[in-house]
Amino acid sequence: MNERIRGAWCATLTPLNERGRVDYPRFVTHVKRLFAAGIDGIAPFGTTGEGQSFSLVERRDALEALLEGGLEAHRIVPGTGCAAVQETIELTRHAIECGCAGALVLPPFFFKDIDAEGLYASYARVIDGVANDRWRLYLYHIPQVTQVPMSDELIARLVAAYPNTIAGIKDSSCDLEHEQTLLRRFPELNIFVGFEPHLPAALAAGGAGTICGLANLYPGVLRRLHDAASDAERAPALEHIERLLKLLEPYPLMPALKAAFAEINGDPGWLTVREPLVALGEDARSTLRSSLTRSGLARSAP
Amino acid sequence: MNERIRGAWCATLTPLNERGRVDYPRFVTHVKRLFAAGIDGIAPFGTTGEGQSFSLVERRDALEALLEGGLEAHRIVPGTGCAAVQETIELTRHAIECGCAGALVLPPFFFKDIDAEGLYASYARVIDGVANDRWRLYLYHIPQVTQVPMSDELIARLVAAYPNTIAGIKDSSCDLEHEQTLLRRFPELNIFVGFEPHLPAALAAGGAGTICGLANLYPGVLRRLHDAASDAERAPALEHIERLLKLLEPYPLMPALKAAFAEINGDPGWLTVREPLVALGEDARSTLRSSLTRSGLARSAP
Repeated sequence: MNERIRGAWCATLTPLNERGRVDYPRFVTHVKRLFAAGIDGIAPFGTTGEGQSFSLVERRDALEALLEGGLEAHRIVPGTGCAAVQETIELTRHAIECGCAGALVLPPFFFKDIDAEGLYASYARVIDGVANDRWRLYLYHIPQVTQVPMSDELIARLVAAYPNTIAGIKDSSCDLEHEQTLLRRFPELNIFVGFEPHLPAALAAGGAGTICGLANLYPGVLRRLHDAASDAERAPALEHIERLLKLLEPYPLMPALKAAFAEINGDPGWLTVREPLVALGEDARSTLRSSLTRSGLARSAP
Repeated sequence: MNERIRGAWCATLTPLNERGRVDYPRFVTHVKRLFAAGIDGIAPFGTTGEGQSFSLVERRDALEALLEGGLEAHRIVPGTGCAAVQETIELTRHAIECGCAGALVLPPFFFKDIDAEGLYASYARVIDGVANDRWRLYLYHIPQVTQVPMSDELIARLVAAYPNTIAGIKDSSCDLEHEQTLLRRFPELNIFVGFEPHLPAALAAGGAGTICGLANLYPGVLRRLHDAASDAERAPALEHIERLLKLLEPYPLMPALKAAFAEINGDPGWLTVREPLVALGEDARSTLRSSLTRSGLARSAP
């Protein structure tokens, strides 16, 4: 648990069964496939995984099901952030007891206009509450969803106070300039980009890799995008990713990712999302299907 | 439980003890004082009550402590909305089993840009999941905090599908025009304003009353503002409320409400807030103290 993670990680989608519950067998199979395709690890129950739409109990049970399914805990960094700090502590403790490589922690996201002092106090309470110096905390910055941005001042204070625990940042701002500023300002942290096309620039600037959603659909492509040694070598993967993003653009992201996954893998069981998200309707799916076919993306890439 | 609520209700602040836990004895004493001053009922664990900063277990336990303290369940409408619909169902069921007059339910608030269909599906899942036709649901509209507004279209669909369960709306938008539109559009609902100065206009337009934060500080004033039969009669209460709001304006609202409460009631135990909120510092408290004194608001009004 002392190692910091790096590489090509997948922010996993959460499969649901006919009763709307987390589909454990499908989830385990999916992650095994990701690992077989070269993905280094997974971050379940982030935003892509609709984490906040599942209860504490569901999130705990699903993590245990992944482990019982034979997946290695040191390749799992679950999202454990909640609106209530006490619940973040509980979920994080559980993840650590399960042997996970760390936890991805959102700031408390109900109140808005929270300053660095309030967010510092929240993370400090989580770290002091978890009370375990062997875990690794990855700050989860996704201001377009939380509406609670994390300032450099906050990160600097946390790193100064908890240099061993604060291990990195998942920057899902999709803002390359912000990612580059973080990389310059915090060379001691393992910084991951959420927006796939920024991975090459981030790696070149010392980034630790990516934790991203498209890895669900094309794990091999993300692996190659991460490993490529030159622009020429990475061009096909980058072009693949950019075509896919353009194609998904007209739709709400998580339902579209699930619909594309269902289409590419021929498994309509993946279509279902949790409220408040709404699955793509038949028309949108049909349009998406045509676009995938036309773009040569309709089949799982090797 | 079949009756719909109306009148002057208090969105209670949540007192914390030295260990940062909900202070049950202080909470019970506070609510008894509110009732003695003429407040009709309380809505604990709304935004003023920092509801989202407490775990499910804490919210359940605190409700039970209020009841064990002798408070009547039919005068309590707790906030039971959570980011995850499954947890909203659990908390709501608990409130109903406790005999509460209903529940105040936020929309799922993590994802943004959720359309009426997704919010409808969320509330429908809550109502179907609670599976009890005797409870009353009050929609909780506070878009400046949740960033998830509820459209008229959503409310109309819910009222059409669940006419007995959907009993009202707490409109905390602080937007009089919006409140008046709701009152015109949904005369069958009991609509409460959150912003105290709008209470007279809302009552005149057929509103059911208020569920508000300032009732913590001046329950008698809110009672009189609600009951006044003429502009002349309500002028002193309205002026009192407006002076107080102006005075609190420079500060973050919930910490300032607690600091003002501590000051007015001579009980510094009320200063403490939960992360991510931060209690007012000594300087701010000192300034607030002077302003309260200067405005003649430093003592509990009869």
